[in-house]
Amino acid sequence: MKRGRRTQAGGEGNVAGGGLIDRRVFLGAGGALAGALAGALAWQRPVWAETGEPAGPSPAMPPGVPAAMLAPGKPFSNYGQPSPFEKRVIRWISANSEVPGNGISWCPLHDLEGIVTPNGLHYERHHNGVPEIDPARHRLLIHGMVARPLTFDVASLLRYPMESRLVFIECGGNSNAGWNPEPIQSRVGHFHGLVSCAEWTGVPLATLLSEAGIEKDAKWILAEGSDPSAFSVSIPAKKAMEDGILALYQNGEKLRPENGYPMRLVLPGFEGTSHVKWVRRLKAVKSPVMTRDETAKYTDILRSGKARQFAFVIEPKSLITAPSPGMKLPGPGLYQISGLAWTGHGKVAKVEVSADGGKTWGDAALQEPVLNYCFTRFRMAWRWDGGEAVLQSRVTDDKSNVQPTREALIAARSPNDYFHYNAIVSWGVSPEGTIAHVYA
Amino acid sequence: MKRGRRTQAGGEGNVAGGGLIDRRVFLGAGGALAGALAGALAWQRPVWAETGEPAGPSPAMPPGVPAAMLAPGKPFSNYGQPSPFEKRVIRWISANSEVPGNGISWCPLHDLEGIVTPNGLHYERHHNGVPEIDPARHRLLIHGMVARPLTFDVASLLRYPMESRLVFIECGGNSNAGWNPEPIQSRVGHFHGLVSCAEWTGVPLATLLSEAGIEKDAKWILAEGSDPSAFSVSIPAKKAMEDGILALYQNGEKLRPENGYPMRLVLPGFEGTSHVKWVRRLKAVKSPVMTRDETAKYTDILRSGKARQFAFVIEPKSLITAPSPGMKLPGPGLYQISGLAWTGHGKVAKVEVSADGGKTWGDAALQEPVLNYCFTRFRMAWRWDGGEAVLQSRVTDDKSNVQPTREALIAARSPNDYFHYNAIVSWGVSPEGTIAHVYA
Repeated sequence: MKRGRRTQAGGEGNVAGGGLIDRRVFLGAGGALAGALAGALAWQRPVWAETGEPAGPSPAMPPGVPAAMLAPGKPFSNYGQPSPFEKRVIRWISANSEVPGNGISWCPLHDLEGIVTPNGLHYERHHNGVPEIDPARHRLLIHGMVARPLTFDVASLLRYPMESRLVFIECGGNSNAGWNPEPIQSRVGHFHGLVSCAEWTGVPLATLLSEAGIEKDAKWILAEGSDPSAFSVSIPAKKAMEDGILALYQNGEKLRPENGYPMRLVLPGFEGTSHVKWVRRLKAVKSPVMTRDETAKYTDILRSGKARQFAFVIEPKSLITAPSPGMKLPGPGLYQISGLAWTGHGKVAKVEVSADGGKTWGDAALQEPVLNYCFTRFRMAWRWDGGEAVLQSRVTDDKSNVQPTREALIAARSPNDYFHYNAIVSWGVSPEGTIAHVYA
Repeated sequence: MKRGRRTQAGGEGNVAGGGLIDRRVFLGAGGALAGALAGALAWQRPVWAETGEPAGPSPAMPPGVPAAMLAPGKPFSNYGQPSPFEKRVIRWISANSEVPGNGISWCPLHDLEGIVTPNGLHYERHHNGVPEIDPARHRLLIHGMVARPLTFDVASLLRYPMESRLVFIECGGNSNAGWNPEPIQSRVGHFHGLVSCAEWTGVPLATLLSEAGIEKDAKWILAEGSDPSAFSVSIPAKKAMEDGILALYQNGEKLRPENGYPMRLVLPGFEGTSHVKWVRRLKAVKSPVMTRDETAKYTDILRSGKARQFAFVIEPKSLITAPSPGMKLPGPGLYQISGLAWTGHGKVAKVEVSADGGKTWGDAALQEPVLNYCFTRFRMAWRWDGGEAVLQSRVTDDKSNVQPTREALIAARSPNDYFHYNAIVSWGVSPEGTIAHVYA
């Protein structure tokens, strides 16, 4: 493994090489460490390399009364939209020109903060476009190995006790450029942005499957969406019964069309394909159906040549969203590192950050609340001395699973794999302050 | 206090009069109580009285292949929007026709679930419209009793360590129709919807005020917005230093224009006015400035004739969002009661529900996570026997503050009060299943 030049900066509060500072620095102005460091806490920030957006510490007030204060503002609105000044913050579309509505759109992780993904920016993966469904005509059929086949519409589903959960959903193909022999250079959202996190509310699948009287031998469930590709996958009945949700709401309001309106599956911690959107059919079956969507795709080609199917659980993953490629550090000084971590096994237990390519690590601060199957935001203070550095993050979950290095991941699978990439991500910092994706 | 006719329904699992069922019924299909009640768990749901939207238990599948599956769907989008079939779910605007941009828009609480308010539906309160602010020209000035007056723009603020919090914001005038001598009849969001909850991310005010060197004697801070009304209030410096945030992000993305873009204050647990939007100036001062916005408004007229000012902390409050006025119960049976609770003192400790106008109470199930200064969703199972009933909820917070009855609130303040209404809300159910707001 290549190492970045070690740039151990001296100074109180360091917890690892390259200038990483103890997370207690975030405990507020009253914290002892922040007090000790007070004189030294002059925070810098990265700028976008192309625009060189300024980061001056105390810009003067423009003269006069701001224009916005001189005339009445805009009227109230029935449904709000982002500021026109934020119109560059979008999902970046990467569609397959050969097949209408096939492709992805990336969540702009580099533009976002916190753990909630706003509904307008939740990533998309469609196989044949976004169906426009009249909820009054949509039905969900539960059939197959059940005592009583049942059909539900939205109104009948709303009768049942509901539950809400903040849950991330990640496409099994997210970050797959990581398998490339050379590191791709793009903004972090355009590389890792097939993941988002929202509060989903709906009816526990256990309630519906129990009401239909699912049979003991029905170990699998075929879930079919009502999009034009009739997207279909087999999911384990055990998971559906444990904590699966038939979701009707996303961040408080009804699901967005591109997220399965009027109903989708949510299987906390499982990869995106199993969260079937626009779901119209749950068929209880004995064994997996081996649909096209679970055989031609979302399987891992292992070193032996065998294909690993049904690797549902998202392995622990983390990445630094700022600073990240496309940004530039204007000069040596103190920087805030901010990033996201998640795991399909449960909860994030620890995120460590390295500034020297994995030689030494310090614990990042985790933003509360830290929840099962949810994004966790981490932050770390870093004093950059102006030398080369390699920034990395590494998550450990509460089941002791640790995010692997790229080498370890490739060794465990195969260089020919294409899915389920969760290796440690490395951002190389040059003495000029530019940031590049590197394999370190 | 008037009482609804007691309609104690028999049956296992009851915890209070009128058919309220033990919250353990929500523990899932495997729960012992759910098992015992299995045969009896035929859930009903209210319908909207005007449209009579059906609630049949197992509607048949419409014949043929759904239209949406017969042709490719809609393309990807850079920024998503709700389904056209949800266009009735809006903020209801109640503007003052005498003053441009003065008024409110209500969050449709009766249409939402979970605890996150989507950004498009967060309630609005403006005094002179929504300013359209170019973030490159916006500045925040910190001055007054400080060692070093400082000016910040957005770029310079992004240098600082940030924190994220799920925090409700409630207008001090929310629910003020509750002071009317007769109960108003409107949907719950049009009565109580000047409250919303989002994940706010920004810089702790303590960081900025410390950097400016706020003086010990500066007990208050004048906060001024850059809207055309120059909305201004005095806030306690202690609160700002404790946990105030200068927020830049709302549910992951930059603030919405109507929520203060590009920057607003967030003072967790304090009433809406103190969360100054479009904030341009924080002036450290010795005592409150007595601005128009904190004297002519948001003060309580007490029985003695005195005006109570600076009642910042939101007292504990809860209400049932479904079933609620405008909905109708189609017939006797089992219903899910869903509602929201919050408190400016900290965390929700307990929500009790009554179906007999406060005679008997049962504990509702609280949806995790239960967080400080955040909405808490509660749910309760209720078997309606078809008789008259009065549904109420009552929250107790972790500082032992209890939501008062309407009588107690009026006794403690005055019938002439207009702000800070947090009394128990009563929904009267008629034998026909119609639901009305009542004073019970």
